[in-house]
Amino acid sequence: MFTGLSAFPLTPMSESGIDEQAYARLVSRLASAGVDSIGALGSTGSYAYLSREQRARAARIAIEAAEETPVIVGIGALRTSQVLALAEDAQKAGASAVLLAPMTYQPLTEDEVFGLYEDVTRELSVPLCVYDNPGTTHVHFTDELHARIAALPQVAAIKIPPAPDDAAAAKERVQALRALVPDTVAIGVSGDWTAATGLTAGCETWYSVVGGLFPRTALALTRAAQGGDAAQATALSERLEPLWKMFRHHGSLRVMSCAASHLGLAAETNLPLPLHGLAPDTRDRLVTVLDGLNLGASS
Amino acid sequence: MFTGLSAFPLTPMSESGIDEQAYARLVSRLASAGVDSIGALGSTGSYAYLSREQRARAARIAIEAAEETPVIVGIGALRTSQVLALAEDAQKAGASAVLLAPMTYQPLTEDEVFGLYEDVTRELSVPLCVYDNPGTTHVHFTDELHARIAALPQVAAIKIPPAPDDAAAAKERVQALRALVPDTVAIGVSGDWTAATGLTAGCETWYSVVGGLFPRTALALTRAAQGGDAAQATALSERLEPLWKMFRHHGSLRVMSCAASHLGLAAETNLPLPLHGLAPDTRDRLVTVLDGLNLGASS
Repeated sequence: MFTGLSAFPLTPMSESGIDEQAYARLVSRLASAGVDSIGALGSTGSYAYLSREQRARAARIAIEAAEETPVIVGIGALRTSQVLALAEDAQKAGASAVLLAPMTYQPLTEDEVFGLYEDVTRELSVPLCVYDNPGTTHVHFTDELHARIAALPQVAAIKIPPAPDDAAAAKERVQALRALVPDTVAIGVSGDWTAATGLTAGCETWYSVVGGLFPRTALALTRAAQGGDAAQATALSERLEPLWKMFRHHGSLRVMSCAASHLGLAAETNLPLPLHGLAPDTRDRLVTVLDGLNLGASS
Repeated sequence: MFTGLSAFPLTPMSESGIDEQAYARLVSRLASAGVDSIGALGSTGSYAYLSREQRARAARIAIEAAEETPVIVGIGALRTSQVLALAEDAQKAGASAVLLAPMTYQPLTEDEVFGLYEDVTRELSVPLCVYDNPGTTHVHFTDELHARIAALPQVAAIKIPPAPDDAAAAKERVQALRALVPDTVAIGVSGDWTAATGLTAGCETWYSVVGGLFPRTALALTRAAQGGDAAQATALSERLEPLWKMFRHHGSLRVMSCAASHLGLAAETNLPLPLHGLAPDTRDRLVTVLDGLNLGASS
C-alpha cells in the first residue's frame, strides 16, 4: 500500500459542516484516475479542525467513494485518548491504514512522542504511517526517535518532510534513515516540490497534495520516477515550479482550496476559520498559473 | 481585574476525566490566599487537552470555588467556531473575563490571527485578554498585530511572553508595546522567572504558574514590585532560581504537576497523555529544591 502515489484530498467545509457531496466527488476522482492510495483527513484534509463525529463520517465517505483504492486515514489529535478513539473509528470505517502525526500544544519530549506511538500501535490492527511534519506539529524527529518508533508493531511507513533539493543530499538523507529502520518500513516523501528528488533518492511513496486535486499530473511524475526516468520526473516537476512557488509562499492547503473552488469542485469558501483562502490578487495569479500549466478538472 | 497576581492552577486529570475535587481545592486555596485573579484553563490548566463539556464543567467548578475572586477562563481552540462556543460556555458559567491564545495547526497569517480576535470579540460581553504564547501556539505576534488587536472592542489585556532578563531591555520592550496599545489595555507578563523584571518594567499583571500552587510566595513578589521595591522583588525571584531553572528545563507544567502531587494536592499522575510527569530522578531533585526553599502547602 505504501508505494507510488498517495493522494491527499481536501475536506471541503463551511462553518456549518463538511460539504459531503464535494468531498465524495474529490475522492472518487482520485480513485478513477488510478492513484495508488488516498490519504483521507491528512493535513490537506484539515483533520485537526474536525470533531470526532465529523472525522468518523468523513472516513466512511472517503472509503465508500474510493471503492477498491486503499484509504489511509489521519488519526492525529492532541491527546492520546482522542487518538485511540479516532483509530477505532477509522478501523471500523474500513481504513486500510492510519496516519499519525504527533500534534502538540505543550512541546513534547522524545519519550512522550515515543509513548504516544507505543500506546497507539498496541491497540491497532491495521498498519500505521508515522507522519513527520514539523511545520504543523513542531516536533523535530531525530533519526534515533524514528528508529525507536519504526521498531514498534504495525509501523509500516514513514512520511518524511520535504527532502533536500540537492539530489545527492536527498539520497544521503533517505539512505541514512533507511539504514536505521526495518526493511518492512516504507519511506515516503512530502513537500510536493521535492517529490521528484525524493522518489529518485529512494523514497517509495509520494504523499502528495497536488495529487489530491490533479491526480493524473502527479501520477505522470510518480510513474516516471518509479520507472527510473529521473530526468523525466525532474522535468515534470520543474514544469510545475510556478505552482510549487505558490505552495511554498501561501501554504499548499490554501492554494489547493482555491484551485478546487476555481475548478467548481468545492465552494468558494471551503476552509475552516480562522484559515482564510487566498486574497483576491493571489487568487488571480493562481488562475493564471493553472491556465499556463493547462491544469484543469481532467488533470 | 488585570492587575497584580493572576494565578494559574493546574487542572488535575486522569485518562478518565478531571479530578474535580482536587481542582476545586486548588482553586479555593488561591482565593483564600488573596490572589487578584485566577486563570482557569490556561496552558497550565491544560485547556487544549479537554473537551468542550469538560471545559464548561471546569469553568463552573473554578468560578464556584473562587467565590469573590475574579476568574479568567481560557477559550482557545484550533477553530473559530469552537472558540465561539467556548466563549459562550465561559460567559454562562460566570467568567469575569476570557483568555484567548491563537492555537495553530496550519501556521496562520497575521490577517488570520486578527480575524480570529475580530470574530470572537464581536460576540463577547466580558473583557478579553490576548494570550501571546509562541512556545505553544508558534504564532509570533508583531507589535503591529498587537496594536490592531488591542483596538478591538472587549480587548482589555495582553499577556506577553517572558520579558527580557535585562531590566533596561525589559523596560524598553514594555514601553514600546505600551505606546502602541490603548491606555485601557493592561500589559502583563508570563514566564515566572521574568516576573520581577517584567513587573518592575511596567507590567501591571503577572500571569503566574508558580502562583497557581504557591500563591503566598507569588504574592510576596508581586506586592514588593507593586510597592516599587524592585530590589526586594528581584531578591525574592532570585531566591526561587533553582525552581525557575527546572521550569525552563522541564516545562513549568510538568514541574508544577509533580509539586502538586508531592504536596498531596493532586494524584501522582495528573497530566493528560501523551504528556508525562517528571522522571523519578528529576522528581527527587524537585523535592530537594522545594524543601530547600521551604515551599509547602501553606506557601
